[in-house]
Amino acid sequence: MDQAALSAALSRSTLVELGRTLYNGMPSSPNHPGFKMALMRRHGDAVRADGSSAANEIIVTGGHVGTHVDALAHVSYEGCLHGGVDAARAQTGGRFSSLGADEVPPMLGRGLFFDIATARDTDVLPGGYGVTADDLSSILDTAGIEPRAGDVAVVRTGWGRYWDDPERYAGHASGVPGVSLDAAEWLVAHGFRAVGTDTTACEQLAPGAGHSLLPVHKVLLVDAGIHILEHLALEDLAATGIVEFSFVMAPLRIVGATGSPIRPLAVVVG
Amino acid sequence: MDQAALSAALSRSTLVELGRTLYNGMPSSPNHPGFKMALMRRHGDAVRADGSSAANEIIVTGGHVGTHVDALAHVSYEGCLHGGVDAARAQTGGRFSSLGADEVPPMLGRGLFFDIATARDTDVLPGGYGVTADDLSSILDTAGIEPRAGDVAVVRTGWGRYWDDPERYAGHASGVPGVSLDAAEWLVAHGFRAVGTDTTACEQLAPGAGHSLLPVHKVLLVDAGIHILEHLALEDLAATGIVEFSFVMAPLRIVGATGSPIRPLAVVVG
Amino acid sequence: MDQAALSAALSRSTLVELGRTLYNGMPSSPNHPGFKMALMRRHGDAVRADGSSAANEIIVTGGHVGTHVDALAHVSYEGCLHGGVDAARAQTGGRFSSLGADEVPPMLGRGLFFDIATARDTDVLPGGYGVTADDLSSILDTAGIEPRAGDVAVVRTGWGRYWDDPERYAGHASGVPGVSLDAAEWLVAHGFRAVGTDTTACEQLAPGAGHSLLPVHKVLLVDAGIHILEHLALEDLAATGIVEFSFVMAPLRIVGATGSPIRPLAVVVG
Amino acid sequence: MDQAALSAALSRSTLVELGRTLYNGMPSSPNHPGFKMALMRRHGDAVRADGSSAANEIIVTGGHVGTHVDALAHVSYEGCLHGGVDAARAQTGGRFSSLGADEVPPMLGRGLFFDIATARDTDVLPGGYGVTADDLSSILDTAGIEPRAGDVAVVRTGWGRYWDDPERYAGHASGVPGVSLDAAEWLVAHGFRAVGTDTTACEQLAPGAGHSLLPVHKVLLVDAGIHILEHLALEDLAATGIVEFSFVMAPLRIVGATGSPIRPLAVVVG
Repeated sequence: MDQAALSAALSRSTLVELGRTLYNGMPSSPNHPGFKMALMRRHGDAVRADGSSAANEIIVTGGHVGTHVDALAHVSYEGCLHGGVDAARAQTGGRFSSLGADEVPPMLGRGLFFDIATARDTDVLPGGYGVTADDLSSILDTAGIEPRAGDVAVVRTGWGRYWDDPERYAGHASGVPGVSLDAAEWLVAHGFRAVGTDTTACEQLAPGAGHSLLPVHKVLLVDAGIHILEHLALEDLAATGIVEFSFVMAPLRIVGATGSPIRPLAVVVG
Repeated sequence: MDQAALSAALSRSTLVELGRTLYNGMPSSPNHPGFKMALMRRHGDAVRADGSSAANEIIVTGGHVGTHVDALAHVSYEGCLHGGVDAARAQTGGRFSSLGADEVPPMLGRGLFFDIATARDTDVLPGGYGVTADDLSSILDTAGIEPRAGDVAVVRTGWGRYWDDPERYAGHASGVPGVSLDAAEWLVAHGFRAVGTDTTACEQLAPGAGHSLLPVHKVLLVDAGIHILEHLALEDLAATGIVEFSFVMAPLRIVGATGSPIRPLAVVVG
Repeated sequence: MDQAALSAALSRSTLVELGRTLYNGMPSSPNHPGFKMALMRRHGDAVRADGSSAANEIIVTGGHVGTHVDALAHVSYEGCLHGGVDAARAQTGGRFSSLGADEVPPMLGRGLFFDIATARDTDVLPGGYGVTADDLSSILDTAGIEPRAGDVAVVRTGWGRYWDDPERYAGHASGVPGVSLDAAEWLVAHGFRAVGTDTTACEQLAPGAGHSLLPVHKVLLVDAGIHILEHLALEDLAATGIVEFSFVMAPLRIVGATGSPIRPLAVVVG
Repeated sequence: MDQAALSAALSRSTLVELGRTLYNGMPSSPNHPGFKMALMRRHGDAVRADGSSAANEIIVTGGHVGTHVDALAHVSYEGCLHGGVDAARAQTGGRFSSLGADEVPPMLGRGLFFDIATARDTDVLPGGYGVTADDLSSILDTAGIEPRAGDVAVVRTGWGRYWDDPERYAGHASGVPGVSLDAAEWLVAHGFRAVGTDTTACEQLAPGAGHSLLPVHKVLLVDAGIHILEHLALEDLAATGIVEFSFVMAPLRIVGATGSPIRPLAVVVG
C-alpha cells in the first residue's frame, strides 16, 4: 500500500473510541491519585489589547487513572522488573531509568476483540468469572482468525457497564471478572503485545479478595513484557460485532513513569 | 482497502515521533503550570504475599505543557469562542460545556510537512521570521501535491533545536519564527483541520513582543475552528525529506479542558 | 506583661492540638480536591560528595481539606461577598483580589470551648442536632464567663469521633449536628471573630439534606465577616474540661485563596 | 501568669509577620515543585436555591516552598537521619515513619533576632558572607541577653530584599550569605531548637557553588536535631529594632513529609 492509500484508508474508516473521558469525580482506585482538573485562567481574566483572551488549566492525575497502559516498570517480582532489571536500582532518582512509560511504543496494527460477555450470552460476566484460554480461542475459531505475534487483545467482560457506579465497578464484595492465568498464558504463547479489558485490573478477582494478589500482572508485565490496558470502554466496539480491527494507541512519553493515560481507538474499515 | 490490509500497512510502516518527552524540569511557558511527576509508591514500599510489588506516580501538568493540541475553547475573541459560543457561559461550572478537549476529534489521515527551514536553506529560521503562504504553497508545488480539506499541516521552523535551552527557545529577546497571518489564511482557505509547529505558540513573534498579541490563534481557533499543535518535535521528520505522510493523533478526552497533551505520529509507508 | 513573661508563659503552657494530621486517604469532601503527598526525591536518589542526601515531596491539596479556615471569599450571597464586594469582579484573574486567605489575620487571643456533647451528657450529638444559643450561653453561665468581642468559639459536637469512618463522618443519611441559625446569631451578637466545629461544615444538617443549603455560612462569612473553622479535632480539648483557653492560629498567606489549612492550638496555662 | 492574662497579652501584642505570601509565579528552588493555586469553583458556577454560592481551589506545592520548616527527615548523612534512624527504612512506604513534618512540634516561646546586616551597618550582607559565632554572640552581649535552651534563632542577612528578583535571590553567581559552620556549632552549643534565615538554604554559599554542599544542614538537622526555617521575611522585624520577642509557629501536620509551609509570627509586647 502506498502513502496516499494509507492516509485515505485512515480518513475513511470509522473510529470507535476505546477510552473513557477524564473528569472530576470519575472513578479511581484508592491506590492511585484521582483525576482533578481546574481552570487556572478563564476567559475575561486577562483580555489582550485586541479583544482576545485565553483560558487554561492545571491537571492532577496518575499514570493509572482512567483508560491507561501499564509500563513494564509498574510491577516487580522478587525485586526484579521484566528482563531481570533490578527494580530498586531502576527507580533510584525518582523515575525509572528503564522500562518507563516513555519506552512504551506506540501501537498501530491489528487488534482482536474478544467479546466474552456476548459469547456467553450475557451483558456482564459475573464477579469472579475467569476468562479462559478456551473463551479466547473459540471466538477466533468461530471467526476463522489465527492470532499473530504483535496483535493486541481487547477482552470484554461487560463490567464496564458499571463504570458510573464506582462502588459496584470496584467490585470489592462481588469480585470482578477478568483474565485467568490460563488465558494469560495463552496470550503469551501467541505473542500478543498488549492485553486490555473493561475493568480496573484486568485480573479475575474473587469476591472479597480485592487486589491482594495480581498474578496476571506478573505473567504479562514481568515475565512476558506484555503491556496491560485497563478501564477500556468497550460497549461501542461490542455494538459493531466485529472481531478484527485496526488498533491505534500512542501513550504519552512520560519519562520514567509506570503508566500513561491513553485514548486508544479501533479503526474499522468501511 | 480491507481491514487486514490496513492493519498490515500500519504494522509495517515506520513511526516517526512528533511529540516530546515529558519530564521534571522540561521547558514550560510561565503562563502554564509546569510538568511534575513523582513516584508515590516505589517497588518495595509494599510487597504482596507472592513477592510482587507495584509502583505508581502522581502527575501535575497543564493542558498546554509539552507537545499538545489547543481545543477550540482555548481562545475567545470579544467574549466569543468559535461559532459564536458565549465564552462566559461555556466556562461556567469550571469546565467548558462545549469546545473542550473532549471534543477534539482523533485525527487520522493525511499530513503535509512544510519544512520551511530546509526550503530556505537553513537549520533554524531567524527569530521573528514569518512563514508566508508562498513558503507553504511552493513546497507543495515542488512536490506536486494539492492540499485537500482535512489535511493536517506540520510546519517546521527549526526552532525546536533550541528546546534544551529554555530561555533561547522562549525567544523573548530574539523573537520566534512562526506562521504569519497570510499563511494562516492560506491554511484556512485550503481546509486544513489542524496546524502544528515546532515552537511555543505557532505564531510569528517579533523580538521583544512576547505573547502580547496572538492573531493566528484568533484566525485559526476562533474564526475557522482549526486546531493548533505546539511544541512538536520535527527534527526526525525533517531527516526523512518527505512531504506527505499519514498523521495520527488521539488527544486525551479531558472534559471541558482547553487543551490536551498529545503524542502525534507520522506514519511513513515503506 | 513584659516580653520575657509572655515568652515564659508560652513555653510553660500545655499545647493542645486542635488540628488533624494530613495524609493520603484522609476523609475529604467530594466538593474539594483530596489530599495527596508523594516523595519526589528520597534519600539515596542523589548523594552529595560529603555523603549527605536530601528528600522532598510534592503536595496536592485544597484550601478546605483537613482542619482549615474559611476565608471570607469562600461564600457569596446574591453575587456579593462580605461587605458588598462584587464576587465576580473579585475573582477575575483567577484569585480573589480581596477577602482571600492572605487577608485572614493570625488569631492569638481568648478561645472559649463550648463542649455541647458533654453538656448534654453524650459522647456524640445525634445527626441533625442543632446547637442553640441556649446551649452556648448556658455553658458560659455555668463557668461564670462573659463573652467578649474578639473571642474564638470552639464548638464540640463529638462528631469528630467518626473521623476515621469517612462515610459516617460525612453523615449524608444521618444528618450532622451543628450550629443552628439561632446560635450563629448569638455568636454574631457577641462579637466572636471565628467559630469552629469538629464537623465538615459547621452547620446543622438534616438527614438526607447534604450541603444543599448552608445558612450559617451566609450569616457568619457573608453578613458578619466571621471566619469558620472546620474539621477541628476536639477530643483532647474535651478531656481537659476547661472552657477558657488561649487560642493560636496562623493560616497560610495563600494569595486570593478561599481557605487555608491550619494547625490551631489551645494554649493552656499550668 | 493565669489563662486570662495570657490571652490578654496575646490579643494586645503586635504581630510581626515572618512568613511570605504564597502565589503563582513566586520564587522557588528548581529542586522543589513550585507553588500553583487554581480556583476550581468560582462564584456563580453553581448557585444554591437561596442565592448563595461557594468558591474553592486546588493547590500544588512542596514542603519546602515559601517560608517553611525542615523536618528532621529532610536530610540524611551516610544513610542515617537524626538519632541514627535508617533513612532507607524510614522512607519505605512513601512517607517517613519517623522524623516527618507531623513530628515537628509547634514552637511557642522565646525568639532571638540576630540582625547581622544591621549590626554590620549594611542593608544586605554580601554573597558568600558567613555569619560567625561572634556575629551572633556580640548581638546578645550588646543587648544584655543570655541565650537559653529552647530559644529560636532568627538570623537576618538582608538577602530577603532580593525576593522579588528570583535570579538574584537564588544567588548562583554571587553566592549567598548565611550561617557558617562555626555559627551553627555555637547555636547547637546553646541549645537553640530552631534556626531561621531570610534566604533559600540558611547556609553560607560561595559564589558559583550552589547547593553542592550544605554542611550546616548536616550539623543542625542530622547531628543536633535542630529545625531550619527558610525564606523568612525579616524586613518588618528589622524595622522594630528588637532582639527578644515571642515566637509562634505551628507547622502543618503532614504525615511523613520532609517539610511544611509555615506562617511564623513574632509577638511583640506593647
